[in-house]
Amino acid sequence: MDMNSIDPAKRFFDKKISERERAIFEGGIGLAAIFHQFIGTPVTGVKGSIKKLEKVIEEAALNQPYKKHVKVKINIPSNLSKNEVYNYRSLEGRDLDVTIISEYGSFQATSRMKYISELKYVLMYVENIEKISQ
Amino acid sequence: MDMNSIDPAKRFFDKKISERERAIFEGGIGLAAIFHQFIGTPVTGVKGSIKKLEKVIEEAALNQPYKKHVKVKINIPSNLSKNEVYNYRSLEGRDLDVTIISEYGSFQATSRMKYISELKYVLMYVENIEKISQ
Amino acid sequence: MDMNSIDPAKRFFDKKISERERAIFEGGIGLAAIFHQFIGTPVTGVKGSIKKLEKVIEEAALNQPYKKHVKVKINIPSNLSKNEVYNYRSLEGRDLDVTIISEYGSFQATSRMKYISELKYVLMYVENIEKISQ
Amino acid sequence: MDMNSIDPAKRFFDKKISERERAIFEGGIGLAAIFHQFIGTPVTGVKGSIKKLEKVIEEAALNQPYKKHVKVKINIPSNLSKNEVYNYRSLEGRDLDVTIISEYGSFQATSRMKYISELKYVLMYVENIEKISQ
Repeated sequence: MDMNSIDPAKRFFDKKISERERAIFEGGIGLAAIFHQFIGTPVTGVKGSIKKLEKVIEEAALNQPYKKHVKVKINIPSNLSKNEVYNYRSLEGRDLDVTIISEYGSFQATSRMKYISELKYVLMYVENIEKISQ
Repeated sequence: MDMNSIDPAKRFFDKKISERERAIFEGGIGLAAIFHQFIGTPVTGVKGSIKKLEKVIEEAALNQPYKKHVKVKINIPSNLSKNEVYNYRSLEGRDLDVTIISEYGSFQATSRMKYISELKYVLMYVENIEKISQ
Repeated sequence: MDMNSIDPAKRFFDKKISERERAIFEGGIGLAAIFHQFIGTPVTGVKGSIKKLEKVIEEAALNQPYKKHVKVKINIPSNLSKNEVYNYRSLEGRDLDVTIISEYGSFQATSRMKYISELKYVLMYVENIEKISQ
Repeated sequence: MDMNSIDPAKRFFDKKISERERAIFEGGIGLAAIFHQFIGTPVTGVKGSIKKLEKVIEEAALNQPYKKHVKVKINIPSNLSKNEVYNYRSLEGRDLDVTIISEYGSFQATSRMKYISELKYVLMYVENIEKISQ
């Protein structure tokens, strides 16, 4: 497939950028977009509500270019305040476990974001990169 | 109803603040939270997707204290780019029409946020304040 | 002072809303805007950098209507990861101590947002409301 | 330089990911983080204020791993409302022109985000990728 004919933005990229690199670049964009867009959202541990939020984040991320599949898992600890009124909190990075599969041309990158306890850090990384048959 | 007994945060407020004023305060918080949390979300004009986002914003706002009812309407103009790939945009304040009903003690405030064309501004205002029977 | 003549948005508000209530409403908006806008910003404990961020948040909040004075204090604990590379974190609500003085007509509201440990909650509240001579 | 010894996160990445690809990935993260974190910030056209915001965004982005240099230019059109009170607006993606230089091992990527009028889109792209002497 010739990406020049279907990607109107391709010519803005350095010509040395390969399809594989572009798939990786789009994965990084997707993860950071989710983190910085949705952190702070008021959340409770209510299951149905969390499911809907996960779905909305997935669909928002899929709207961006070259995202093929997005899976969002929100892990809200159940030790929220027992207070009747102030019984929610803001979504934090460490609550998130996100997998984004981005595709560009004949390459597919699987990017992941999750809290790594030994790093004490919400890491964004490329879990897999491979050539796909198209 | 004695709000002192059920609102553990009441004592942090100036004692001169009335129930009516508190209802109004909570309305203002709710509107600004929605604006600054969700602006920037990648959106398309796809109906089902927009409905889900509206619902998620409503539920997020309802998690905050003293919000009784939240209605979010997202108006995405259909003149999005016809481009195959870059055919979405970021949620803007002017896309939003939000109504929040906040209640505190025996008062109910209806707050609204929407784009006012003559002001060229996304206005947050109190549409109605009233005493309710409780 | 007749706010009707200088506030083009006044007529959108319920006529029963007093100047005092409007000052309180604007305070609530200001606090929630700061919280939901800036939570997630990558921060380190570096003093100069924090000072600049505090200043920028103050100025952003002051751009909004009827904010008279804004004071932002960011408390970043020094126990950030000692890791050379991943030695920062995202700004959280509990890092913030914000005071907003909003004025409308002859009333001034002092609103505050800070983490209340006994509530395990970042509380937004009205610390003081008073009539001012204008 | 052996990145294994200095990057504690390296082992989470697919081993097939090259230094060059990692530099590109980090660039994508940086651009999306800026977009989704700061869109919505209340801004005016006041020069000094804009300069401070640009600086704060640059420093926030530099806190993230492997960002070597960040340049943020905010272009606020001067046609803000002439209204005395509602004379600001929210920062939009199209206001931003951002350049991020990310380095990993012996590779340096220059990533850019700016509004491309012909695409009607705020594009994030890799402007340059090269091997550097280290």
